[in-house]
Amino acid sequence: MVNVSIIGIGLIGGSMALELKSQLNVKVVGVEKNTSHQEIALNRNLVDEISELETAVKLADIIVVSTSVDKIETVLCEVLDHIKPSATVIDVGSTKNHICQAIANHPMRNRFVACHPLAGTENSGPNAAIRNLFMGKKNIICEKEKSDLDAVDTAVKLFESFGMKSYYLSPEDHDKHLAYVSHLSHISSFTLGLTVLDIEKDEHQIMNLASTGFSSTVRLAKSLPETWAPILDKNAVNICSALDQYIKYLHQFKTALSTNDTDRLYELMKNANKIKDILKPS
Amino acid sequence: MVNVSIIGIGLIGGSMALELKSQLNVKVVGVEKNTSHQEIALNRNLVDEISELETAVKLADIIVVSTSVDKIETVLCEVLDHIKPSATVIDVGSTKNHICQAIANHPMRNRFVACHPLAGTENSGPNAAIRNLFMGKKNIICEKEKSDLDAVDTAVKLFESFGMKSYYLSPEDHDKHLAYVSHLSHISSFTLGLTVLDIEKDEHQIMNLASTGFSSTVRLAKSLPETWAPILDKNAVNICSALDQYIKYLHQFKTALSTNDTDRLYELMKNANKIKDILKPS
Repeated sequence: MVNVSIIGIGLIGGSMALELKSQLNVKVVGVEKNTSHQEIALNRNLVDEISELETAVKLADIIVVSTSVDKIETVLCEVLDHIKPSATVIDVGSTKNHICQAIANHPMRNRFVACHPLAGTENSGPNAAIRNLFMGKKNIICEKEKSDLDAVDTAVKLFESFGMKSYYLSPEDHDKHLAYVSHLSHISSFTLGLTVLDIEKDEHQIMNLASTGFSSTVRLAKSLPETWAPILDKNAVNICSALDQYIKYLHQFKTALSTNDTDRLYELMKNANKIKDILKPS
Repeated sequence: MVNVSIIGIGLIGGSMALELKSQLNVKVVGVEKNTSHQEIALNRNLVDEISELETAVKLADIIVVSTSVDKIETVLCEVLDHIKPSATVIDVGSTKNHICQAIANHPMRNRFVACHPLAGTENSGPNAAIRNLFMGKKNIICEKEKSDLDAVDTAVKLFESFGMKSYYLSPEDHDKHLAYVSHLSHISSFTLGLTVLDIEKDEHQIMNLASTGFSSTVRLAKSLPETWAPILDKNAVNICSALDQYIKYLHQFKTALSTNDTDRLYELMKNANKIKDILKPS
């Protein structure tokens, strides 16, 4: 029997719990402060039981920290203080640099593997947990060299059992990269939502917008601020660079529009089309 | 037998053709300058035959103009010059004001119904034509009062047969509204594509980005410049206003990020979340 404790039973923690509970010989203990989330986790059978952090950590073979990123640093230190020497501790935060720095000098640092499974939806909480959320997606592991070989092995196998392949990046590269492909996407969606809400309010124009490409582009604007404000804050410097670049291109569109320069509009779009190559399945 | 001529067999014209060809008593004639598109349209059985514009128009009961919006004005005038008096002419352009103005004084204006079925994908051309593209979506009709009642009725029934409900807007309101919910979405996607391509190039960071929310947010960046440069150009004034608002909110995000104002980030996102109410199925 493998004992897994998951701290924070939301979309990610809950979906990991669902996968693990479907496996033959795994016991899943949940640690969750929100009492209504506790109830949902038990009712949906995401976890075998809910427990206090210290109790849950002491006996666990694998501990997953899946709280919001502003809490991961503190929780991780507390977890590492109480693990058995052979345990593997994994976090699944969307930012990695501040987390790796925070636990750099912990005496049990070698049992920790910094992870980021690139998966999610715009929904949140244990009710949003679903099977196959991770299937075919990628997991990023940072600072592999600071973790014991067997701990990395355990982390890789865990995500492999969800259908994920693991890749290795430095925390700095991870955060820079994610600023562009994930965090900026969220800001562009949130901003689109704000802009359209403004005009809809002014115009008293009620229409079901879901008919247009809008619903796809604005999907991430439904994401939970409690999750995303800390992520953006923890990666602020990289995101500000990405935003500068993004705003620069918006001004290029605006200039082309206001001078009726259709050739330039065409050129900007043609260049953007190259994103097709990046999005190709690898 | 109802004779329908469709001018421009791309994603929209081709998908309309597919729906019509599935109906019991309809003959579909295609008008298409691109010879490889002609071939695909015939091979995929989207149309019964390909014909010259004048021939196709003269005998048709319904004529659909589904070329790119920069060509619709000219094509529409030519079509209206050759229709039989009882024919109904429909366009499906994504901008409406310049089109309605261009044909305002045509002696056959009353046989024209300005339409915009709110449906599409990021793909284009007759190979992208699919069944059920329009199912459950909305069609906008502009300047209903300038069209004969029976012509409006024909247009409504046509789109109803595809599973669409029709709504009425002035061309001005249509273009203003669409600037926000469709055209701005496209620019935000194209810009996201450009920004990410830049950083990927600098970083030599090759990763399958499709794992993140990125693929949804950037989907529209794959759209065809030949289609979209004219749309943006024809609605430039409205889109520039939308862009100003959008850029204003981006700067608010940037200020909150650079001052580590997590409360403000939270507030901006919480406000954006209200888009959920608008996206609810009506």
